[in-house]
Amino acid sequence: MRDPDAFLASAAELLGERGFTRDRELMAPWLTDWRGRYTGNALAMASPASTEEVSRIVQLCAHHRVPIVPQGGNSGMSGGATPDGGGEALLLSLRRLSAIRTIDTDSRQAICEAGVILQTLHEAAAEKRLRFPLTLGGKGSATVGGLIATNAGGTQVLRHGTMRAQVLGLEAVLADGSVFDALTPLKKDNRGFDLKQLLIGSEGTLGIVTAATLRLLPEVGERAVLWAGLNSIGDARRLLLHCEARAENHLEGFEIIPAHCLSAVLDHLPDARSPLASEHRWHALIELVVEQGADEDLPGLAESLLSEGFETGLIEDATIAASEIQAEQFWLLRDSISPAERAIGPAMQHDISVPVARMAEFVEAAVPQVESRFPGVTAVAFGHLGDGNVHFHVLAPGGVARGEWEEGEGKAISAFVHDLVTRWGGSISAEHGIGQMKRDELGRLGNPVALAMMRSVKQALDPHALLNPGKLVPLAPEAHNN
Amino acid sequence: MRDPDAFLASAAELLGERGFTRDRELMAPWLTDWRGRYTGNALAMASPASTEEVSRIVQLCAHHRVPIVPQGGNSGMSGGATPDGGGEALLLSLRRLSAIRTIDTDSRQAICEAGVILQTLHEAAAEKRLRFPLTLGGKGSATVGGLIATNAGGTQVLRHGTMRAQVLGLEAVLADGSVFDALTPLKKDNRGFDLKQLLIGSEGTLGIVTAATLRLLPEVGERAVLWAGLNSIGDARRLLLHCEARAENHLEGFEIIPAHCLSAVLDHLPDARSPLASEHRWHALIELVVEQGADEDLPGLAESLLSEGFETGLIEDATIAASEIQAEQFWLLRDSISPAERAIGPAMQHDISVPVARMAEFVEAAVPQVESRFPGVTAVAFGHLGDGNVHFHVLAPGGVARGEWEEGEGKAISAFVHDLVTRWGGSISAEHGIGQMKRDELGRLGNPVALAMMRSVKQALDPHALLNPGKLVPLAPEAHNN
Repeated sequence: MRDPDAFLASAAELLGERGFTRDRELMAPWLTDWRGRYTGNALAMASPASTEEVSRIVQLCAHHRVPIVPQGGNSGMSGGATPDGGGEALLLSLRRLSAIRTIDTDSRQAICEAGVILQTLHEAAAEKRLRFPLTLGGKGSATVGGLIATNAGGTQVLRHGTMRAQVLGLEAVLADGSVFDALTPLKKDNRGFDLKQLLIGSEGTLGIVTAATLRLLPEVGERAVLWAGLNSIGDARRLLLHCEARAENHLEGFEIIPAHCLSAVLDHLPDARSPLASEHRWHALIELVVEQGADEDLPGLAESLLSEGFETGLIEDATIAASEIQAEQFWLLRDSISPAERAIGPAMQHDISVPVARMAEFVEAAVPQVESRFPGVTAVAFGHLGDGNVHFHVLAPGGVARGEWEEGEGKAISAFVHDLVTRWGGSISAEHGIGQMKRDELGRLGNPVALAMMRSVKQALDPHALLNPGKLVPLAPEAHNN
Repeated sequence: MRDPDAFLASAAELLGERGFTRDRELMAPWLTDWRGRYTGNALAMASPASTEEVSRIVQLCAHHRVPIVPQGGNSGMSGGATPDGGGEALLLSLRRLSAIRTIDTDSRQAICEAGVILQTLHEAAAEKRLRFPLTLGGKGSATVGGLIATNAGGTQVLRHGTMRAQVLGLEAVLADGSVFDALTPLKKDNRGFDLKQLLIGSEGTLGIVTAATLRLLPEVGERAVLWAGLNSIGDARRLLLHCEARAENHLEGFEIIPAHCLSAVLDHLPDARSPLASEHRWHALIELVVEQGADEDLPGLAESLLSEGFETGLIEDATIAASEIQAEQFWLLRDSISPAERAIGPAMQHDISVPVARMAEFVEAAVPQVESRFPGVTAVAFGHLGDGNVHFHVLAPGGVARGEWEEGEGKAISAFVHDLVTRWGGSISAEHGIGQMKRDELGRLGNPVALAMMRSVKQALDPHALLNPGKLVPLAPEAHNN
């Protein structure tokens, strides 16, 4: 940093009282990630209120060589929005950029600023009888900018894709403060590199997202939520293929749950009961959706899928939620797996993916390998079968000390799981990103050619390494030796 | 170049007789683009037969600083695969990388090498009762590598997206000869920058595509092809919105044709007749498709769309193709516009796009502006309304000399059209790419921030400027002054 006092004076003047603070108490909630795993320090917190202000504060940072940590709702999963402990960085909150600039109902597009909260967008779309087809647990705090920076996933990726697929246009402030304006959505545009794609998922290391044009869909007209008991994850895969062939345009979710997870949930939720009376080794939660105004017999389609599943022997038993309330109850069982497990004891949770075609095989191979290598643990895999995204949780042996186990055997387990998934051609981060949490693992296991490209691009677009330093981009091999 | 003789000797040894030639006659067909607009020279032509050989020849080029012009089927529209006249570059043909490595019918994915011809892929998919959902006029020569390098479009983008949307995984050789291997398709993968997206549409300036994992769809079960007569392009837009709301998942094409183009086609094709007996200012060609096995009453849907169009006054008259033969005849009318116009006289053809929502308005504004600025010309706009992609053709006044007009008034017309579309927030290249044809126009009209980013990324990934020099990336402003 060249001259901290000059920087601080200029920044305070530029952003005014509402936009700039060094108050420890005001900054504190934003210096620890929401899960309490990472805590950092900051020189100050800037909260610009417009793209123009973001551009000017970034110019100031560039001039004074002040590192910047951009932050949205502070609900990330990998510590990507928490500064390091050095206290030299500016924490740059985008939360005041909170306008939904327009919603175009004909084109079904919304132009949102980076600080718009996901739930707010859902509500604004619903008022226009539209919907934004991405949702996740943190929707009450996650912001559009953060969702784009981390290319967020969620439960609707099977049909609608990740955040990348929702972004039709983008505006971002680059490392030198210049504004990259690609907000105007063009369905066909071959004027060179698709730079928007480079910024999506770059976790604030190449630019700071300030606004986006997002696609909307017609509101949901009707949904059918099915619960099926299955004998194996292989059968689940075959059932998924069948559903895709028969109902691809309506298949919104296909989640799998092993018996172990379901009973943990039933123990954890006193009022819950299993949708099926019988016992099954695996369960599938399937959601079919038709948009308002579309011409489709959804109950008929759901019935046919189940009867075909029975006939082919893929389904042992099944039921269709009889009401919206019951549909919500089915989803609650799925969404309660993580809390139910946490109630039992410590667990290492891995957000990994493998090619969709290999997921069943992977789970069948990985569970016994982990359990035999680390005696006493229980490995469970559940999640988005349709996306190849496994939530692979390894539960600690009974009686271990929370905290201590995670730091010891837990770390070895994670390295083992990451090695395994890499050998299977998979990803050590399916949807939560790299942040600071997995940066070294990415350096250890990432494809060296891809890592070298990433470093070159980072160096080209952020030559002074001011944008979210220490996140995402692994250090070059020689740097490890310093 | 460091030592041409040493380079040529090593290259000949590396690739052998089938893979390397300096024979003028053998090279000639590949040194002029298929439309005969650009002719170049080359030091030699390399035709490696494997990714490994591509990697080694590129390493050799990097060592000797030999520029490389990658080429697929030589059917590009912008001179992107033709070397300059200097004769210092190596022409690198990817045509011998022609294997379809695998087709996975469950996952509906094909792994194709760069030299696979589009038509070959269509046929291989059809044998497995699948289809590859992208097609275009040059399908008999266009290769997978070229389609990816140019992010090709075609007539099915409305429903299935451009080539970018078909690419699930990618393999490419970078400027230093290293192999970027991201062939394994992962539906969710957040391990940093999506480098694959950067290579798609980069026209060989950042890397050389050697193979790709492509998505396939179930074969078409049934299609309905509709022809509607309309009073205005505004009505066409409203009809499109209605079709999207009612039949989005089945709407595969929505093309618009003005009366002027239809009569040119009817004059040009002796056996053709108009699908409708009445006269209309505009025509829409609409295609609906259902996949094999899907549960949908397509004829019923087509009938409802038309009757709703009549009721709301959007459609003046309409018909549904009664047979596959008639459906083909409808499409032939659309596909004959360009040849019919060429028969009349010279024309400047512009491949431009504007936001879908503004296309009707743009056409209504642009046609009279061009015609009043250049007296005697006729401006017509037709094409993919659903994509915002206008084929904007300006026909010469009667009696002008072919060749001379294009170089004189024609150039001024193109600059005028490009200025106009830029002011409307559109693109000067919707689907044909930049190549050498539009590089200076991109430099003149491109967003300076985006151009600076492009140059930085190019410099980072190809520091010696060896990959397809002179294409796509406009020179920096200071370079223009040299």
